[in-house]
Order: sequence, then C-alpha cells, then structure tokens
Amino acid sequence: MKSRKLLLMGSALGATLVVHAADWQALPEKPSIPADNPQTEAKVLLGKTLYFDPRFSEHGTLSCNSCHNVMSGGDDNRPNSIGMHDARGERSAPTVWNAAYYSSQFWDGRAATLEDQAKGPVQNPIEMGMANLDEAMSRLTQIPGYKPMFAAAFPGEANPVSADNAAKAVAAFERTLVTPNAPYDRFVKGDTSALDAQQQRGMNTFAELGCTSCHAGANFSGPALPLGTGFFMKFPTYTGSAYDAKYHLLDDTGRHQVTGNAADEHMWRVPTLRNVALTAPYFHNGSVLTLDEAVRVMAKTQLNKELSDAQVADVVAFLNGLSGEFPEIAMPRLPATPDHSVIPPVDPHRQANLAK
Amino acid sequence: MKSRKLLLMGSALGATLVVHAADWQALPEKPSIPADNPQTEAKVLLGKTLYFDPRFSEHGTLSCNSCHNVMSGGDDNRPNSIGMHDARGERSAPTVWNAAYYSSQFWDGRAATLEDQAKGPVQNPIEMGMANLDEAMSRLTQIPGYKPMFAAAFPGEANPVSADNAAKAVAAFERTLVTPNAPYDRFVKGDTSALDAQQQRGMNTFAELGCTSCHAGANFSGPALPLGTGFFMKFPTYTGSAYDAKYHLLDDTGRHQVTGNAADEHMWRVPTLRNVALTAPYFHNGSVLTLDEAVRVMAKTQLNKELSDAQVADVVAFLNGLSGEFPEIAMPRLPATPDHSVIPPVDPHRQANLAK
Repeated sequence: MKSRKLLLMGSALGATLVVHAADWQALPEKPSIPADNPQTEAKVLLGKTLYFDPRFSEHGTLSCNSCHNVMSGGDDNRPNSIGMHDARGERSAPTVWNAAYYSSQFWDGRAATLEDQAKGPVQNPIEMGMANLDEAMSRLTQIPGYKPMFAAAFPGEANPVSADNAAKAVAAFERTLVTPNAPYDRFVKGDTSALDAQQQRGMNTFAELGCTSCHAGANFSGPALPLGTGFFMKFPTYTGSAYDAKYHLLDDTGRHQVTGNAADEHMWRVPTLRNVALTAPYFHNGSVLTLDEAVRVMAKTQLNKELSDAQVADVVAFLNGLSGEFPEIAMPRLPATPDHSVIPPVDPHRQANLAK
Repeated sequence: MKSRKLLLMGSALGATLVVHAADWQALPEKPSIPADNPQTEAKVLLGKTLYFDPRFSEHGTLSCNSCHNVMSGGDDNRPNSIGMHDARGERSAPTVWNAAYYSSQFWDGRAATLEDQAKGPVQNPIEMGMANLDEAMSRLTQIPGYKPMFAAAFPGEANPVSADNAAKAVAAFERTLVTPNAPYDRFVKGDTSALDAQQQRGMNTFAELGCTSCHAGANFSGPALPLGTGFFMKFPTYTGSAYDAKYHLLDDTGRHQVTGNAADEHMWRVPTLRNVALTAPYFHNGSVLTLDEAVRVMAKTQLNKELSDAQVADVVAFLNGLSGEFPEIAMPRLPATPDHSVIPPVDPHRQANLAK
C-alpha cells in the first residue's frame, strides 16, 4: 500500500476538526512475505500447531502462546513473563500481533526475521528451557503426527522435519497475525466518523508533539526498512528525569547487550503502537502500569515535554483507536503420542542443577 | 441413548471375530444437561472465554486450559501439573473431555457437578492460586467486556455477574467437550470394520478379564448414577504386588482424604477410558508412563491377573479405539482492559509469604 499525505476533515460528535497532514498510513492487509518462505495453508497450519504446542518446553507447560497470547493483545499483560522453574525474564513480552511488519525482532533487534526469532525462546533457560534446538527437535520427532504436516508444508524436500523448517512454519503463521481495520485505519481510508473528536485531537497532538518521528509508518514502529535493518532509538533520550529511577529506565542497556558497542547503549527497537491499549504494562521492562503514564514518560524522556492531563487523555484516546480487528482462529489439534507422553516425568535439567 | 447388549460379527483384516456380548454402549451425542443450567450459545461462549482466561490465576499465567488442554487429550501429559510458584500437585490432571458424563468430579469425587468443580482450581494455592473466589471475581469485574457476556448468558437476572454463574458457564462449555464417533462407537453402531482384528480381540479380552465390571457404560467410567453419586472403586484392590511401592500406589488415600472414613481409604472415582491413549502418564499420581504398563498394573492390582504381552497389546489396541472425534473450536477473544492490566505487577501472595 502506498503511503499518502492526508488532510482529513473529521466530523464527529458535532465537532469538525482538521487532522494535520502527516504520513498517516493504514495497515497493509498483508505483510511482505520473504521469497524463501512463501505462505501456504499447510505451512500456516503447521506453524499454528507448533505455536500452541507446550511440549517444546522443558516441563511441557509453556508454548509460544503462553507469553504471546493471540486470544488477547498478543502478550501476557505482565511486566515480565514467567518461564521454567518460575524464572522471570528481564524484559516484557512484546506482542506477536503485527510483528510481521517489523524489520527486526526482539526488543534489541537481535533477530533479523521472524524465522530467526522463533528459535530463541525455545532454548532460553528462563523461557521454554529446552537445552537447545536439538532437544526440541528430538521431542518433535517423537510425535508421529508432525511428520506428514512437515511434508505437506515443505513439499519436495528430502528431509522436511528440521528446526529451520519449524521456524519457517511458525513465522508463516505469525505473518497471518495482523489486525487491520482499526478505527485509525478506517479514518485514514476516509471514514471520518471512525475516530471521535477526542481521538482526532489526540491524533493531531501525537503528530505535533513529534511522536511520529519515531512511531512512524503503517505499524507505528518506524519507516519501512529492509528486513534485518532494525529501527532503533535511544530510550531515554533525555536522561535526568525522575522517571529514570522510578521506572529503572537505565538498568538495561538494550541493544548494547547484543553488540557491545557503546553507541548502542540504551538503544531499543521502536515498538509498534498498534493494539498498545491492550498490552499493558509498558516499556521494555514492563515497569509502567498504565497507558496514560506511558504517554507522559515518553513525552518527557523522548521529547523533553510535559503534557497536560487533557493532552495525555487525547493521545490515549487516539492510541485506543489503533486497536484493530482480530481474525478468528480455529484451535489446532496437537498431534498425539499414543500410549505415552514425550514430557519427561522428572525434570532432568533441574535435577542436574540441584546436583551441582 | 439406550444401552444394548451386542453380539457383533467383526470382519477386519480378513479375520472374522465374534465380540462377546457385553453392555457395550456408544457415547451419547450429548451429556444430560442439569435443569438449572440449560445450554445456550451465549453461555457456552462465556464459559469458553473464562476457561481460556489466565487472568483468574494469581500471576495471570494459568487458565483452566493450561492443565486441561482441549487442543490435545484434555490434560497436560504430565505426572502432575505445575501451578503458581512452580508448585506441583499431588495428583495428575484428569481429562476434561467427556467429563460431562461423570456423575461426580475430581479423582476423589469431592465435587458433585462440573459447576462445583469449576470453583476449585481457581482458589487452590498450588494451582491457579487466587486467595478465594472473591479475589477472582474482583479481577473479573475489572474487565468490562465480561459484563455484557454475563448478561447475555443469564438473561433476566438482576446481578448476573457472580461466581456461581461463572461456574455455570464454564460447566456449560465443558458439556460441549465430548468426543463421539471413536472407532469403538462406530463399531458398536454396526460398522464392523471400525475396529481391526487386534482391537476386536482386545475388546473381548477387556470384557473377559473383567475390566468392564468397573469401566462400564458409554463413558467406561461406571454405571449411570444420579448426579453427585460418584462411582468409586478401591485401588489397589489387591495390595502386596511390587507395583504398590514401584508406583507409590498407597501414598495417597484418595476419597478418604475427603470423608475421613476408613472405608474410603484408597477409594477412587473410576476414570473414563475414552481418549485414554492420549492422556499418559497414568493413574491418580501419574506414576505410570505408558498405557501398556497401566494395563498390566490394572490387571494385577484390580483383578489379580498377570497378562501375556499379547493380551496387553490387544487391550492397548482396543483402548486406542476409544479415541474419539474432537470438535473444532474457535479461539475466544479475551475481553480487554484498555490502558492497564488487571494482573498485579508484583506477586502479593508471595510477598506476604516471604515476609512471614
């Protein structure tokens, strides 16, 4: 979809507002699909099944969906997720909805693609806790029903059952997780009643304050960049406010932890604002509990501005207009392992750790 | 559905077998519905939504479905489930599929109905870990989208949002979780090719050994009894085998823990065998890892019989014929709490416990 400069005349609740010209874009119906991983029905079904299968976690209790819940806003509404052995992560689970529109994945952009991302949590000891991808694949190959699903998803391949193909399938499913037709999208497409007067004021405020300099584009996560080229910004840009300590904003150095470069300290991938009203608490560490406080913190730390309560309320109203339409999804049937379970009855990693 | 004595002539794989007359019954299409909780579409949708909503657990991480997974065999394929704070339960999660055909709920029958059962795990400290039902309802009433759903599910009620109605809705959803048309059902209805020769031999063996004296009726969980009248049996009936110690069969006194009556020691509700091939590991403590071993243990402890490998294989083949057709289920959308989360950012119970 082409972006276009819009000058819209909104008419809601009797008020008529002019929404300032900005690069307002509706969400494209579909994200771009990598040439080496075309979407097929069989692949998406396989990916969905893997996404919901808890057997690829050490104790058989957590699936991708446990922390990135597609029945809600695509995250877990927690400051941080809870992994194996009651472990807490340092960072808040990002939403999976519209993740396909990012040009890099994870808060620190350490994965270029959804395919790369999908391999991470499975083998993270504080997330799904498999020792490595081989261990996960060893579970998978014990589940007979997956074999024909991989064959159907990757036809013509001699050995379709692989971690790379599992990641491709999960990515293909995730590329279906898009939420078009938010009130904002309908407004941008010309339905001037889709956003009410307050939301239109908030839209103006959002642009005037300068939020759009980072939260740009159809996904409100920055300009369109080649896949693998993350769009990063420093957070906080303006240090020294009381928020730094209150919300522990400087504890985690962000992308610097991946690259080791001083220039990357406190650099973070700019997150989407689509469905942001549904994904509290906020920021990389989930330290801010409400959207209005998140808007205040952003204005102060990124733009060095203090907002009035009315401005905050307007922007929050606008951001609520970014909650889209969620597609209906049929639950997958997880293929069976008749007569036995592939989940070990004892916890081998924990036993090993306790023995240390 | 009427039960009927059947004398079936099976013809599979070229073999012709006569299946012994027994009270073989196909699964009724629908379970009986309590007069005070009729099924409606709105109620089932509400119940399904509650069933999948993790916000009624202390940390917002576990829903009913976490341990009773309807995408698989209706349990979690673990010896015991993992609750809040990495707690392990003493008993293995029973399958939710066809639970509606039981005349009592839980391994020890301590709940008469699905409605009663639904209130248990939410407030169990080692399961979902809410302090009590009031705390769960306090979360629920903070989620605005539930209010119209309760109103639609319980029309005409002045205060439809209540724990009792939540439990009714969950029970109504669970009464849709039935798996008809297993190969066994089709066989009983006259499709003599639905079970193969080995399965038919296993069906005979199952009856001849006496398994049907407890695992009777359409649900293989005992005779039809009035709701609230559980069908219990002693396990192990024949003590003294090596299995007692090997599988810790005497550690948990079962129904005795509910009633305190010596006569109830080691009495257990007879579990359904429908989909049993999908619900390993086995028994109340999940101590037996495979279905063939479970068949051996049952024969020894309940019937004082040692089975040949061939008999075990035949019975296991028959039990695999009890895996039914699972209905397709659309995922619910969990109603939102825009701009904030109802899950506390810190863990108040744990903080309180640590402070003790």
